[in-house]
Amino acid sequence: MATQSPDVAGTSSAAVTPPERAVVLVSGGLDSATTLAIARAEGLECYALSVDYGQRHRAELDAARSVATSLGAKAHRVMHLDFGSIGGSALTDPSISVPRPGETTAAIPVTYVPARNTVMLALALGWAEVLGAARIYIGVNAVDYSGYPDCRPAFIAAFERLADLATRAGVEGTTRFRICTPLIDSSKAQIIQRAIALGVDLAATVSCYQADPAGRACGRCDACHLRREGFAAAGVPDPTPYVA
Amino acid sequence: MATQSPDVAGTSSAAVTPPERAVVLVSGGLDSATTLAIARAEGLECYALSVDYGQRHRAELDAARSVATSLGAKAHRVMHLDFGSIGGSALTDPSISVPRPGETTAAIPVTYVPARNTVMLALALGWAEVLGAARIYIGVNAVDYSGYPDCRPAFIAAFERLADLATRAGVEGTTRFRICTPLIDSSKAQIIQRAIALGVDLAATVSCYQADPAGRACGRCDACHLRREGFAAAGVPDPTPYVA
Repeated sequence: MATQSPDVAGTSSAAVTPPERAVVLVSGGLDSATTLAIARAEGLECYALSVDYGQRHRAELDAARSVATSLGAKAHRVMHLDFGSIGGSALTDPSISVPRPGETTAAIPVTYVPARNTVMLALALGWAEVLGAARIYIGVNAVDYSGYPDCRPAFIAAFERLADLATRAGVEGTTRFRICTPLIDSSKAQIIQRAIALGVDLAATVSCYQADPAGRACGRCDACHLRREGFAAAGVPDPTPYVA
Repeated sequence: MATQSPDVAGTSSAAVTPPERAVVLVSGGLDSATTLAIARAEGLECYALSVDYGQRHRAELDAARSVATSLGAKAHRVMHLDFGSIGGSALTDPSISVPRPGETTAAIPVTYVPARNTVMLALALGWAEVLGAARIYIGVNAVDYSGYPDCRPAFIAAFERLADLATRAGVEGTTRFRICTPLIDSSKAQIIQRAIALGVDLAATVSCYQADPAGRACGRCDACHLRREGFAAAGVPDPTPYVA
């Protein structure tokens, strides 16, 4: 894959080729931390991107910073966006409550944030183009979160097609963008096992939709439920600090 | 086209159908103002969206507010995003100077903002989904600005395909999104003539890449050059306040 790295230009053939760059979306949760660890294990120079879009709590962003540092990201950027102001999601709109497991029967949960992954990938694409990074990693998962439309392989493939049409690097042919989703077909238990094998400090990650400022998980929301079940299925002790 | 409007639910067949909603990206420039006027003339209830992504000047956003109000947008939202921090463009990075006409020979100008229209359309898509709006208007133009990859019909078509895959409304089939680009094949002179026919106050729009705080255009950058030529070709007096 051709990448456009300013470091490469003008170097002699004897020079060491710099590592390939990747932008990795890091939320502070278990899945994105594992995704970053996978990208690092593949030898990539990783640029971690977190988006503060008005989530209900800040513990997730604190976790993102900790994860980016401990897993050796080359840089970590938190981009601020007042996206929550459009409403429409329990994750950003205080007037919609986060449901407990079994409380809703809708195919797509109210915790769905409209166009969230489209926005995230668009921001990552902009940074990737500036960095000369051809790969963008995102920890989406179509197994446990199949209710979110923008976690499905068809969405990812459509974004990949868009990326080459959307950018100077794509049009000029210097970069052929790839949206990498190493966890898309994994169960939560498989993700946890992979994270442990790669040395991810899972206690530092936050999955809960409404963690308290100290990063303690509520233990009751969908995300906590899924995480607890994942640790149980993986046969691994759950290090998560739960309130309940 | 099916739209998902909360106002419709539960009304009797005798009730008046509410107007169809649209999200219109409004930058404060001539093209987006004309686009808003076209959407209004089509009878749409328009929700104007401006994105403050660290442009060089604020006059453009002041113009966007003025345009949204004067053309009867139902609401106007300015979304803040610290996108300029990724660098890579003369429009957001003070270390890259805005070129004068003829100064550069690159196919894609340095004023190109990486993934800009992908980000804009993603934000508009999120708001459109919340509003139940099926149409998103963007004033891109492939004639005069053919150097920007994300102004071409192929990019717009790819985003339209993505939108239905990316959203709950698209997946559930309640909305079939359309990205509307009424100016994509128009020359600047044609846009100016259309704007005047629709009663757009062109003096209130700002095209200049580096307008001063009072909204006065530099008169020297690519955008000023194009605008001046457009008025000349349209045979219309140019009401723009130029510094030089």
